[in-house]
Amino acid sequence: MIQYQSIVKIKTTGKLFYNVTSKIQAVVKESGISTGLCTLFLRHTSASLIIQENADPDVLLDLQNFFNKLVPEDNLSYIHSAEGPDDMPAHIRAALTHTSEQIPISHGRLLVGTWQGIYIWEHRQQNHFRELVIHIIGE
Amino acid sequence: MIQYQSIVKIKTTGKLFYNVTSKIQAVVKESGISTGLCTLFLRHTSASLIIQENADPDVLLDLQNFFNKLVPEDNLSYIHSAEGPDDMPAHIRAALTHTSEQIPISHGRLLVGTWQGIYIWEHRQQNHFRELVIHIIGE
Amino acid sequence: MIQYQSIVKIKTTGKLFYNVTSKIQAVVKESGISTGLCTLFLRHTSASLIIQENADPDVLLDLQNFFNKLVPEDNLSYIHSAEGPDDMPAHIRAALTHTSEQIPISHGRLLVGTWQGIYIWEHRQQNHFRELVIHIIGE
Repeated sequence: MIQYQSIVKIKTTGKLFYNVTSKIQAVVKESGISTGLCTLFLRHTSASLIIQENADPDVLLDLQNFFNKLVPEDNLSYIHSAEGPDDMPAHIRAALTHTSEQIPISHGRLLVGTWQGIYIWEHRQQNHFRELVIHIIGE
Repeated sequence: MIQYQSIVKIKTTGKLFYNVTSKIQAVVKESGISTGLCTLFLRHTSASLIIQENADPDVLLDLQNFFNKLVPEDNLSYIHSAEGPDDMPAHIRAALTHTSEQIPISHGRLLVGTWQGIYIWEHRQQNHFRELVIHIIGE
Repeated sequence: MIQYQSIVKIKTTGKLFYNVTSKIQAVVKESGISTGLCTLFLRHTSASLIIQENADPDVLLDLQNFFNKLVPEDNLSYIHSAEGPDDMPAHIRAALTHTSEQIPISHGRLLVGTWQGIYIWEHRQQNHFRELVIHIIGE
């Protein structure tokens, strides 16, 4: 049994979904691990991880619209507002989604379903570099 | 240290909670692993995983009612509607809950609390076969 | 490759966030594992795990306020009400956040970002002892 760790930096340019599935699959290949477990960990509290449909881009658009209504940026009730109107909503959206995800590996491939894509969901308007830790264990 | 992987297929018949705790416990037993970590990964984006109270079934009913209001199926604002009125709400409900879960193992048993059950939460009305990957690592 | 398991008991005194980052880091040190994966599992369905900003306490206050509005305690529509007005909202808030979290370890340290704290979020008003399972695997 071995393990392999890598930190991938993703440049984000606004409140969008960044598909990182192939980047993660490349690290799995690099690890040489055939059967195992891949853990993703995002080192931030205003961006998050989400596994969602990779076929129709409208799904991601609807998801963004839903969260825009659920956690509005124009809400005057946030106390934490010094870092901009998108900062506190970003924290709440991250809390409602995920900081870590796990995907089992078989035959050197992530066992994602046909319609599953792995995304970093950026909740801040400004450009950021986001650090995604990829930890792989197996043999 | 060894690992064990199994894919369990669950037939779902509508928007309900399917208790898979004993199915997962059976796979843990099958693995022969006494101390370790059990990872669950659902290969779908319109059903999800949830760990919730296993005692009073009203808890699950209230949970369903809450999500029915939070993510309504009659909302005309979804762009992605070609797959039926329950499809986009299913994706949102999955995003708000979980695709992967981890439960440590001790003495050959999942370390769930007394009141915790592990459920597949089906968000689509029609019948489906859902694939749950169970990955166990330990000794 | 070795593993290490510990159950930490946390006393909670009301609906607050309990920062357990240093407690978990202490268990990582105790394990002697330098590179690996730390899994957290909370054995309850009315408290949850959350990784959030550790700098400005107003972030946690805003998060609490948001959830108080999203999942109100005065909502008369819950069927499960015998355990008190805060019980069913507690289950829903737990479903919307996390029961398990994973943090990779490098050089004997949790790879959390600079601004990330790991919290137990208590959703019940009364005092509780909460059991957090910490499972560490690595070398």
